[in-house]
Amino acid sequence: MLYKEIPSQRPVTPLLDTINHPQQLRLLERSQLEQVADELRQFILYAAGQSGGHFGANLGVIELTVALHYCFDTPRDRLIWDVGHQAYPHKALTGRREQLVTIRAKDGLAAFPAREESEFDTFGVGHSSTAISAGLGMSLARRFKQDPCHVVAIVGDGAMTAGMAFEAMNDAVAHHADLMVVLNDNDMSISCSTGGFAKHLAAIWESGQSVNISENGEAYIQPHPEWAYNSRLHCAATDAADNLFKAIGFDYFGPFDGHDVEQLTHVFEALKKRTGPRLVHVYTKKGKGFAPAEADQIKYHAISKVNAPAAVATAPKYSDVFGQWLCDEAAQDDRLLAITPAMCEGSGMVQFAKQFPERFFDVAIAEQHAVTLAAGMACEGVKPVVAIYSTFLQRGYDQLIHDVALQNLDVTFGIDRAGLVGEDGPTHAGAYDYAFMRTVPNMVIMAPKDENECRQMLHTAYLYKGPAAVRYPRGNGLGVEIQQEMTELEIGRGEILANFNDQQDDTISILAFGSRVQAALEAGQALATKLDVAVRVINMRFVKPLDTQLIDQIAASTQLFVTVEEHAVMAGAGSAVNEYLAQAGVVKPVLNLGLADEFMHQATHAQMLHQAGLDAEGISASVTQSWLKHKQTVVC
Amino acid sequence: MLYKEIPSQRPVTPLLDTINHPQQLRLLERSQLEQVADELRQFILYAAGQSGGHFGANLGVIELTVALHYCFDTPRDRLIWDVGHQAYPHKALTGRREQLVTIRAKDGLAAFPAREESEFDTFGVGHSSTAISAGLGMSLARRFKQDPCHVVAIVGDGAMTAGMAFEAMNDAVAHHADLMVVLNDNDMSISCSTGGFAKHLAAIWESGQSVNISENGEAYIQPHPEWAYNSRLHCAATDAADNLFKAIGFDYFGPFDGHDVEQLTHVFEALKKRTGPRLVHVYTKKGKGFAPAEADQIKYHAISKVNAPAAVATAPKYSDVFGQWLCDEAAQDDRLLAITPAMCEGSGMVQFAKQFPERFFDVAIAEQHAVTLAAGMACEGVKPVVAIYSTFLQRGYDQLIHDVALQNLDVTFGIDRAGLVGEDGPTHAGAYDYAFMRTVPNMVIMAPKDENECRQMLHTAYLYKGPAAVRYPRGNGLGVEIQQEMTELEIGRGEILANFNDQQDDTISILAFGSRVQAALEAGQALATKLDVAVRVINMRFVKPLDTQLIDQIAASTQLFVTVEEHAVMAGAGSAVNEYLAQAGVVKPVLNLGLADEFMHQATHAQMLHQAGLDAEGISASVTQSWLKHKQTVVC
Repeated sequence: MLYKEIPSQRPVTPLLDTINHPQQLRLLERSQLEQVADELRQFILYAAGQSGGHFGANLGVIELTVALHYCFDTPRDRLIWDVGHQAYPHKALTGRREQLVTIRAKDGLAAFPAREESEFDTFGVGHSSTAISAGLGMSLARRFKQDPCHVVAIVGDGAMTAGMAFEAMNDAVAHHADLMVVLNDNDMSISCSTGGFAKHLAAIWESGQSVNISENGEAYIQPHPEWAYNSRLHCAATDAADNLFKAIGFDYFGPFDGHDVEQLTHVFEALKKRTGPRLVHVYTKKGKGFAPAEADQIKYHAISKVNAPAAVATAPKYSDVFGQWLCDEAAQDDRLLAITPAMCEGSGMVQFAKQFPERFFDVAIAEQHAVTLAAGMACEGVKPVVAIYSTFLQRGYDQLIHDVALQNLDVTFGIDRAGLVGEDGPTHAGAYDYAFMRTVPNMVIMAPKDENECRQMLHTAYLYKGPAAVRYPRGNGLGVEIQQEMTELEIGRGEILANFNDQQDDTISILAFGSRVQAALEAGQALATKLDVAVRVINMRFVKPLDTQLIDQIAASTQLFVTVEEHAVMAGAGSAVNEYLAQAGVVKPVLNLGLADEFMHQATHAQMLHQAGLDAEGISASVTQSWLKHKQTVVC
Repeated sequence: MLYKEIPSQRPVTPLLDTINHPQQLRLLERSQLEQVADELRQFILYAAGQSGGHFGANLGVIELTVALHYCFDTPRDRLIWDVGHQAYPHKALTGRREQLVTIRAKDGLAAFPAREESEFDTFGVGHSSTAISAGLGMSLARRFKQDPCHVVAIVGDGAMTAGMAFEAMNDAVAHHADLMVVLNDNDMSISCSTGGFAKHLAAIWESGQSVNISENGEAYIQPHPEWAYNSRLHCAATDAADNLFKAIGFDYFGPFDGHDVEQLTHVFEALKKRTGPRLVHVYTKKGKGFAPAEADQIKYHAISKVNAPAAVATAPKYSDVFGQWLCDEAAQDDRLLAITPAMCEGSGMVQFAKQFPERFFDVAIAEQHAVTLAAGMACEGVKPVVAIYSTFLQRGYDQLIHDVALQNLDVTFGIDRAGLVGEDGPTHAGAYDYAFMRTVPNMVIMAPKDENECRQMLHTAYLYKGPAAVRYPRGNGLGVEIQQEMTELEIGRGEILANFNDQQDDTISILAFGSRVQAALEAGQALATKLDVAVRVINMRFVKPLDTQLIDQIAASTQLFVTVEEHAVMAGAGSAVNEYLAQAGVVKPVLNLGLADEFMHQATHAQMLHQAGLDAEGISASVTQSWLKHKQTVVC
């Protein structure tokens, strides 16, 4: 069935309602599975509409999910969903159907598979391309324990371009591991898939041949079946008839129609009879069965809640501020080239890609390559800008050190989704970038207090002749005016924003970084009144180099230093302040506020900040406590 | 010529001596190149014998290097040597011949290509598998600038298994970039190559066919030429006839004999006439032309200086302590599985691999995969140990966070070559691991003061039910007795090693980490006498969790805290101490000693420690200065 609307009422799903454990699914006849799939699709449409969240990928794997749980003895057999944003149907079939409307909300189901949530979630995911490695680990461990089971990693074609998938396939062959990889080929990552691998999949499609499998597990060639997806063949096929998976040593089967649930069950049953590394290639369609999503797969990658209040005109997203800056800077400097690892939309680069197609490089899901590509470009005197989420820069860390910073190359990093990220939860938190970047020589690291400063900092980073990063949060700016004209900031200089109550002798100096400056300002004002003390609030701007001159200047008149950041306290920006104070011989009390040493569960961004004590209220409470304790000590 | 000895006198190399710039090489007749290669080989044998260092790989690329510089207009055309440990012949042909004897020494030539050393060194390397990304960046930048040149990335078969090489090839095809990749296939990484890719190269070998190229750049198939290398075919070939490079969209040529310098020049000249991504596959032999190295390629991966004094019996290497512990722990716990990313020898695992072959997993150069493979294994209740160099763990950082720590999985990390690494220089420094690991929740991080503690800490990490890392330095232990029986240490507990001069009221507390404990002890003793002050020296043992109880205990009686570590001061272990002191409200002067915020050039490990002020003398000097400054402040 092709649906046209997201239902606001729970649909009637009599057959689905009988399935609270895959064991109950496995009691059904094969001929009933299509109905299960149809009910499940209706249900997912409804549930995702209630919760908001990932959408197209879930609709695309309905039949696949039903077939896998039907054929494999889950949870004893291991299913590993790569990325995991397509696991809603899996959650629905494994006892979490009615909770699915809570997905991504505080205390609700996790956005991705999570080991603590269910024994069916064999491996926690969120980032792409880990499933083959994890599955291989499971398979080898089970072999070693002489307790083998089937292990199936389900990986999208987009995720296959990340090198670690290739590393894992290489290793699986070394061990002739019992491992099945389902290549869920929907011709997309979030954006359209790109590169040689996508061309290769196109070539397989165009070959007109499919490798089928007989009931007893034998491979045979047959003509390519005649199903047509409008969205296929985003890119030209390569000439090659060579099969990459066979070349690396996998048995290859497919392509099959990933929406033919009965055929899939036959394929999986037959595959169970073989050993060694096997890859089964299925074609699916993102958004399958929902007309608007089939028509616009990028838009429907994720959706908002159906009953969400209409968005009010608000401040621009930081991503859009980045995107606008990128266009403006490129317009005035023809050396600018921009790189994204498959996050064109998320990073706000759609307009740039249209306006400057020859200067836009979507390198696919390949963060390691993205960073070193930029390094190579910088060697030739152009000025690359890498747009990357904080959490994904973790994938390019060695490249940041070894290829960019060590050679002091002129690469600008626009680091998005830094700090807490709300509903996506702990896998996507950008809570470690200050730490892992500031320990590296030559890095310049900035964090803006608002969207205008973000623009000016990006300009500053761009002009700086070396590696420089601007890290900004998920979500919207503060609504301040954005100055079109770009002004370079002085490297390593912060600004004193306020001196509340400064006729008092006792002074608290709050050194705030990036997204926490505004809350610090609010807290500072409240504290000055509440504690009857002078409060100086500083927008530090630079995590590295730190404004040591400013710190020197305020040291003598400060009784308590407070640092505030949306980053782990451990090794973070406040920790850099501590280091300088120690070095300068400033012996004063310091309160470091930031994220505690724990992974935070999903909630809204605001809820998480509150929980972390990093909103104005939390900052105020912590400073009060510290100040009173300090005063008491001094009095004693 | 096949040589049998490393000459101790500089050989006579009349033709080579005329080449101080590749332009001079290019003036020669093709027929003279074999003589150039022979003289170059003799010279490299001599020079490497003088300097010590990488060896086999350099002998393997003599002809390739001559042919590349003969055919390409270097430095305008770009050669990028992947890893770069094979760049000695390249350095010799590009004006640095007579300096080659200084390679790896303080103030000598760098161990690897380095941009600041020569315009011919287009990209700094050291870690593997970056060359295709960097080369693609150069090629795209030059295309964009409308100033195209030839770009050639020379990559070993071992380095091809790292995912980023695949990411780069995928992207090169997307852009139809003008990029040549020379696959230097010697059937080895440092260890034997492993996995599906190696099997694929074996399959190409066994196919009996070679893709040749005509003078005008056309491809044609010919029978495989009849050269036999004893060392080929370490592994069984796959069945597949499919070509992986063609599948991903590269034009493929070869395999060719990588020691036939004249043929290579014809191939490269012909390849220059084609456009787009091209891969030329050449077979070479590690150690070529030197009989002992051809016979034992692993042993001759690197050599010591020929005139080095005979090694005296000394304390065991930390790598060997790790290897012995691994065997002993495995003998008493059959859940232990060990993983290395292609560093079996370097990580001291040869004995383990022999004794427990079914529990040994060399995953090839694939750090990302190595870490997530361990995570997958841990999910099944076995106990994986990942042996990895600090600098290479940077490649698996996201996997450490996202796959191991976030799920609090029971994975033990043996982190070798932590701190300064001497002659390998800044690319291999393990100077950032405390910072990038301690910011991550759930991690336990230890550093041993000596080889016995290293063993006990590895045991402790292994028993700890979560992610735990022991980081130890390159080189030898202190010569202390190693207790066979393994004793679990209490998590998060340090030890007070000495209280020098403790009848004094004024006390300096030195909190030392890992490899710097011994130097701190020596410094402490000297300081107590020199400054007439009490000095307490503490072996902190744990970077995380920190022994806060011990710090509480000594806080009141301490006038100056000193932290010492072989790691960047920024965000390091001392910084963790600062954070705790701030949190505990201990307002005392602190001196953080560690590595300055700069990349340190190569020298011996001892020279580098001295330069960094981290030997006993340096520590003593810094503490003295800080103490006197502090006393003065107090007096004022």
